Formats: sequence, structure tokens, C-alpha cells
Amino acid sequence: VKRWARAALCGTGHIGGSLLLALRRAGVVDSVAGYDRDRAAAERAKERGIADEVADSAVAAVAGAQLIVCAVPVGAMADLFREIAGAIDPGALITDVGSTKQTIVSSGETILGPRFVGAHPVAGSERSGPDAADPGLLAGRVCLLCPTEKSDPAAVAECAAVWQSAGMRTRAMDPARHDRLLARSSHLPHVAAFALAAALDGVTSDEESDAIADLAGASLRDTTRVAASSAATWSDLLLENRGELLPIVEQLAAEVESLRAAISDGDRAKVAAIVARAGSGRQRLVRS
Amino acid sequence: VKRWARAALCGTGHIGGSLLLALRRAGVVDSVAGYDRDRAAAERAKERGIADEVADSAVAAVAGAQLIVCAVPVGAMADLFREIAGAIDPGALITDVGSTKQTIVSSGETILGPRFVGAHPVAGSERSGPDAADPGLLAGRVCLLCPTEKSDPAAVAECAAVWQSAGMRTRAMDPARHDRLLARSSHLPHVAAFALAAALDGVTSDEESDAIADLAGASLRDTTRVAASSAATWSDLLLENRGELLPIVEQLAAEVESLRAAISDGDRAKVAAIVARAGSGRQRLVRS
Repeated sequence: VKRWARAALCGTGHIGGSLLLALRRAGVVDSVAGYDRDRAAAERAKERGIADEVADSAVAAVAGAQLIVCAVPVGAMADLFREIAGAIDPGALITDVGSTKQTIVSSGETILGPRFVGAHPVAGSERSGPDAADPGLLAGRVCLLCPTEKSDPAAVAECAAVWQSAGMRTRAMDPARHDRLLARSSHLPHVAAFALAAALDGVTSDEESDAIADLAGASLRDTTRVAASSAATWSDLLLENRGELLPIVEQLAAEVESLRAAISDGDRAKVAAIVARAGSGRQRLVRS
Repeated sequence: VKRWARAALCGTGHIGGSLLLALRRAGVVDSVAGYDRDRAAAERAKERGIADEVADSAVAAVAGAQLIVCAVPVGAMADLFREIAGAIDPGALITDVGSTKQTIVSSGETILGPRFVGAHPVAGSERSGPDAADPGLLAGRVCLLCPTEKSDPAAVAECAAVWQSAGMRTRAMDPARHDRLLARSSHLPHVAAFALAAALDGVTSDEESDAIADLAGASLRDTTRVAASSAATWSDLLLENRGELLPIVEQLAAEVESLRAAISDGDRAKVAAIVARAGSGRQRLVRS
């Protein structure tokens, strides 16, 4: 396995921090320069051993690095690519962690060239920031790599090795297919959790929420867990993938309305049919 | 703690079975007669040690029992009460496990008298049937008791002791307040999960669901877990509590529509505001 003498981490949050901690633990990265728009987050990343030094800019971080990890919100990715493009060593490998891939891969390849290889580690949690970074977060999970016909095959192999060093199982996937699948496996579940938690917030008094918190019901805890996710990250993501997302949000709205109408009509058979369809859908999508 | 020489369990499923297993383990119940409309479920309950004997009817099960646990779907509860009313010993304690309480408590008190004490163990899972019964399921969880001014105070105390013997923390609550809180803490989260899983079922090909299952994303797993719940139980429950549920299902529909519109308009600030509101709602309702 290739060792990287110097790596740069642009965006020292939950996912990027977890990756670098795992790579350091695996012994494949020697020194790390960390940059974050939020200086305090970069300082905290240094304290946590994610980075050895805090860089004053993304350009300063990537200078001299052989491995560059771009871990900013998806909507900030293209600007980051433009910023660092002129400062990158010609032989450097560049990858990212974005949860959407079509736009990012297209701009990464255009701006940074064939040694940019888009990646999406399908892991993470509702937490954010360098304090949530965890070297075990990625272990055993799937990392989707989105090389295209423009990618340098050597860079693709190096990139797969990097993510595998963090304990991930890599899968190659076309960027458009990635965005279609992730709209279903992650973005729509987040939309449902956001809508549910926002609705509950609006219909529950403080006194009632205390009583509900005391019950500690598992259905509420699980259905709303991801509603605690970062608003900045997720407003970016949902907008970035809106082409895939909008038709299925409409489908979600249609199902809510079907259930509402069936409940309102007292139509037990129709409610039971929707619940049964939900159960078989769940069984197809989640194996345990 | 009072010992019960003979108990009757009407409905030998997940929750009733878990209660009787816990009571037997605690040594407060000597013998149990089990009845289920589904004879195979009652036989299976006997095999699992939930009941000592399978009764041919609910009437036969309750004859001679001092403790009677009614654990059928909420929509079948009043019929069960009417069926057993003439066969119950005058001194017997009757309780139930229904997840709605206004209708059940009202019919239980009217049909069975002051020694009926409504209960709702806030526990359970997406599983159902006697094979899912687990003596540890209820331990440490909250059991809501819904006595009224008609209840026999001695029966209320005995009922609390029964549920506490299964390891539960009991709380007294007015039936109307119970149904209002549970609509928020459990029924609406289930509606959201049903709508999400049904929507995903409709927009995902078999080939795509295989790829999504391979990703094993945590957001999908958690947001849809309860979508695997029993269609019979839940169609009953949602209709039973429709008065409390309908206005908040409308609120859920409104939030889905707000998110859809904001995503469609590319309105990042509005999406972020909804996500932030969801996060603070979650924080009020779930303490960890």
C-alpha cells in the first residue's frame, strides 16, 4: 500500500476528520495540513490529531501534498476546486467526500483533471464537526467511487486503496446512477425525517414535549434521528440533487395524502394496504 | 407483591406474550390460560412458555382467573370486553395493552366495571406474534396507566404493581391526554415511516433496491424501521386515534410540501430554516 508523505484536508469536519484519523491509524499518511473556513474547527482538528498543522488557506494546505481530500459541503466544492487548482502538484491524487456526485465529478474533472476521483463514503451520522470525527466511522461501510472515462486509471486504483485503508469496501458507480440511488437511500429519508420533526415541533407545547421525552419511545427516536443533521450540509445536498429528488418528494407527498384520506374516510382496508406496501418496500430496501 | 394463582391472556402476541413471560419470570403469576383467535399463535405461546394451557375461547380463558390481560388489536378490544363480561370473577383485575386509550377505557369501564384499569406499555417493536415475545422487552420502559374517577383505587394499585413486576415505570395519565401525546410520539412517526417506505417501494426497481440494500445506509434503516410493523395492528390504531391524528398528519403534509417547494425554488435559506426547525424539534422531543 502506497504511503502518503503529506496529505491535505480541506474541510476538517465529521467525515473528512474521520477519514484522516483512520488513514493515520492505518499508517498510510505521515503528515496532514488541515484547512477549514471555520478556523476554530481546524484548530480543534489539530488538537484531535486529525491534522498536524492548521493552514491559513486551502491553497497553503494543498501546496506540496500528494493526497488531497476535499470535504466541504457539496455546494462549496466547485469553488474549492477553482481555488486550489493552480496550487496542486501535478502528481497529486485528489478525492472528495460529497454525498452527490454528478456536478462534483463533472467540475472536479474539468477543473482539476484526470487525477481527481470522486468518492462518497456511505457512512456518517447526524453529528457534525471535528469533535464528531471517529476513526472507526467508515470501517466496514461502502465507499462509492465515481470514476469516468476521463479518469487516470492509476489515480482510480490509488483512490480505491486510500478508502480501503480506512476500512471501507469500495464500489465503482456511474455518477448519475449514484445520485439516483442516493436520492432514494438517503436524501428522501432525510426529507421525511425533517418534515416529521418540523411538524412535531409545530404541534407540541413545551409541557407536552417534556412528557413525550419522558416516554422515550423508540419509533420517535429512530424516525427523527437524522433530523438532527447539519442544516448547512443538508440544504446544500437537497438542492444539489433536486433533479432526482423532486419527483420522489412528490411521491412521498402523495403517500402522505393517501394515508390521510384513508384515515379520514375510516377506510381500514386502504390503510392496511398502504402499511403492507410500506412493509414490503422496507423488506426490499433493508436487509438485516 | 400480590401473587396471581391464575391469569388469562386474551391475545397471545408480542406485547401480551412479553408481559406474561416477564410476570412468570418475576414469580408473580402461577398459571396462565392463553386464548388467541389465531389458534396456532396460542399453541405457539404455550410452546414458548407464555401460557400453560390453550383455551378454546376467551370466555374459557377468563373463567376462574384473578388477573385478565386483554392484548388484542385496539379495534377488537370492545368486542372482547363484551364477550368476556359475563364470565369474569367479580374480584378479578382486568387490564389491557392498547396503544390508544380514550375509547378502550370508556368501553372497559362501562362493560367491565371499576376493576378494569387501562394500560399502555410504551415499548414494543416492529415485530409481532408470540415468537417476538421477550421477557426483557418491557424492562425499564414507561407504562402509562389511565384510571379515571370511576376506577376502584385498589384495582389501580394492583394494576400498577403488575406492570412494575414486569420491570416497567408506571405513570398515571388521563386517557384524552394519552391519545394526544401518543399521536405525536408514536402514531405520526409511524405514518411518516409508512409513507416513506411506500413511496420508496413505488420509485425503486428491483435492481435498484438490491444496490440500495448493499449500501446499508443508516438513515434508511432507521427512518423505515417501524414500517415493518403489523398492518392489522396499525390500521386499527391509526383509525382509532384519528381525531388526534388527522390534524397533525395535515401538518406533516404541509411540511413535506414546504420542503418540496423550497427545493423546487432552489431556496437554500428556506430549506436550511426547515432543517434547523426539525433539529430543534427533535432536541425538544428526544433526550439522549
